[in-house]
Amino acid sequence: MKTRERILLTSLKLFNENGEPNVSTNHIADEMDISPGNLYYHFRNKDDIILSLFMQFEKQISDALEAPTARALNMEDMWLYLHLVFESIWQYRFLYRDLDNILMRNRKVRLRFKRILERKIRTAVAICNGLVDAGIMHATTEETEALANNIAVVATYWLNYQRIRTDKQEENGDIGRGVYQVMTLVSPFLVEEMRHLLYRLSHDYLE
Amino acid sequence: MKTRERILLTSLKLFNENGEPNVSTNHIADEMDISPGNLYYHFRNKDDIILSLFMQFEKQISDALEAPTARALNMEDMWLYLHLVFESIWQYRFLYRDLDNILMRNRKVRLRFKRILERKIRTAVAICNGLVDAGIMHATTEETEALANNIAVVATYWLNYQRIRTDKQEENGDIGRGVYQVMTLVSPFLVEEMRHLLYRLSHDYLE
Repeated sequence: MKTRERILLTSLKLFNENGEPNVSTNHIADEMDISPGNLYYHFRNKDDIILSLFMQFEKQISDALEAPTARALNMEDMWLYLHLVFESIWQYRFLYRDLDNILMRNRKVRLRFKRILERKIRTAVAICNGLVDAGIMHATTEETEALANNIAVVATYWLNYQRIRTDKQEENGDIGRGVYQVMTLVSPFLVEEMRHLLYRLSHDYLE
Repeated sequence: MKTRERILLTSLKLFNENGEPNVSTNHIADEMDISPGNLYYHFRNKDDIILSLFMQFEKQISDALEAPTARALNMEDMWLYLHLVFESIWQYRFLYRDLDNILMRNRKVRLRFKRILERKIRTAVAICNGLVDAGIMHATTEETEALANNIAVVATYWLNYQRIRTDKQEENGDIGRGVYQVMTLVSPFLVEEMRHLLYRLSHDYLE
């Protein structure tokens, strides 16, 4: 593996484990057993590393957000789709933890993150419209818009919320619960049969 | 006004305006035109100021969370209640913006914040149970539990979410939109008549 890629992998691991504000470029170089000079040859500073990691994240979550608008989804698809979104967030969770700080410091990341948020909302609207057209969901335009915002809020902040509540190192298992919470936002708008299917699926999934 | 109180008021203002990480005790002393020594006579360090501000916030939001469990609520009450909760968060928004950092640094604040979160959830469950008992809401125990968590997530992170989306200094008006979003979480579980009432109220309120 090339040094540049190793720096990114090591940074991601350390940021996720210790929080980005607590990790310096010296820590990263130490962990890799390379000189700070070698690190600076590849990245100008920590924000430069963060930008590169952000662009990896952007690519990954964009792929995840692409899929469902391309065709109509059934309930199982939706579960898988949400799982992929949460998995991307989990993998780059350091971004979400110190979101405000990172976005205030770095204009490029801020504009791009904002675009991801808008895409989350648009994708949620598209999925809901698909379900309404298929006759398995009942919601007015106003309800769908509010729902899409709530989906984006819960998907964006669920891991932060769980982290405070459980007061421990996060575990990957919080993803399952996050997907479930988003599905419960949608479920009251579903026709009864689908609502039951959703709760059955969710029990299988969470066990 | 006593110096101690003035320090707290000035800190709250500066933290909210500039973000807590960007404000030092020296900034605070400068803004008040007092010596750093005078400030340190009242507070040992910045975290000590944050703890005092947090305890003011705790008192205020606790009062807001107390009310609705004491008696059954109608739709208008609920709106007022949520408005008070969002207003407390708005007043101490610096806490919510850098939540992860502040909580990681300060164990006392972390434990107390966690307790506020649990109370938000319990209050939401109590309100929903009240609405179910009054026959104006239909939801199973499982649905109510998931709903209460979604209410807590949206109430906790709405201002952060809006801040990223609008990419500007927040405005007090985001509170109204936050209350509306929480109400839309509850509305699909309401009987039709109440659901219409809720949307009518919300249009009056948001105009």
